[in-house]
Amino acid sequence: MKKFEEKTINTTSIYEGKVVDLRVDEVSLPNGRTAKRELIKHPGAVAVIPITKDNKIVLVEQFRKPLEKSLVEIPAGKVEIGEAPEVTARRELEEETGYTTNEFSFVTSFYTSPGFADELMHIYITDELEKMDTPPASDEDEFVEVLELTLDEAKELVEQERIHDAKTNYAILYLHALGR
Amino acid sequence: MKKFEEKTINTTSIYEGKVVDLRVDEVSLPNGRTAKRELIKHPGAVAVIPITKDNKIVLVEQFRKPLEKSLVEIPAGKVEIGEAPEVTARRELEEETGYTTNEFSFVTSFYTSPGFADELMHIYITDELEKMDTPPASDEDEFVEVLELTLDEAKELVEQERIHDAKTNYAILYLHALGR
Repeated sequence: MKKFEEKTINTTSIYEGKVVDLRVDEVSLPNGRTAKRELIKHPGAVAVIPITKDNKIVLVEQFRKPLEKSLVEIPAGKVEIGEAPEVTARRELEEETGYTTNEFSFVTSFYTSPGFADELMHIYITDELEKMDTPPASDEDEFVEVLELTLDEAKELVEQERIHDAKTNYAILYLHALGR
Repeated sequence: MKKFEEKTINTTSIYEGKVVDLRVDEVSLPNGRTAKRELIKHPGAVAVIPITKDNKIVLVEQFRKPLEKSLVEIPAGKVEIGEAPEVTARRELEEETGYTTNEFSFVTSFYTSPGFADELMHIYITDELEKMDTPPASDEDEFVEVLELTLDEAKELVEQERIHDAKTNYAILYLHALGR
């Protein structure tokens, strides 16, 4: 659907980074006027809702520099170029939690912030977790602590805003709606 | 909580825009090494789940330049400096849909993409809508079409990925969980 399409008149690349690129497009609007659009390009991300055999949710706490605080989130990570989402899902699950699985179900996908960014988040769920003997090393600049919580405990963290991001709030509401 | 805190060694401002700023921080990690963090600063946003007296959800379709397509979303907009979220909620509701309300309930808030951005999204719900005789003009560079859908119709748009963003997917799941 291209309703109210904004055609690009010119594009200025501002920054090409490790995680995001920023460019500014001048566009022609449906009424013939022009406007500037600031656009973040992101490779996309995958998150996993991992449920243990005793029905706990595996979460990771990590520092988030943009917020200057740490959040408790479901395991997630950036899609590498050309990678299928299930491959990203398994890698991030293994690196961040030490669990693996052969069984993912797709839950949903959504753009995190379509007004300024093209990041697409894919969410999977698995309740077929196996503890790994030797989990792969995580990214060298990534430090996480693993938590295993009941749904009620996770809902408390939502109340306290220690769980406070789109994918994880969605995941907790999803599990609530499932009646788990 | 500041677990695994990353202390800023230096900050480079890359861009200051109308919607987002971009800066790159060099940080010291918990293991003493350093890393770069690309950080998008955003003023925050508010979204409203508007429910009509005949139990339909009011949604807006608009073109999203980062995606080069239009999406169907709940009404939303950026917080202006110093503005209370309820004020943003009413303004965006009025401008985008022509409805107003005096009654908002808070649903949740979440960071949309805490890995690289500080955008905080606040979500409200209202089922006390009044049609305005003379709705305020919307932003001059904003073009939207209003839709009023049943929850089942909205769920179909989720399946079709015409509803496909964090706040709106959350809203549809929230209404589903409420049993509306």
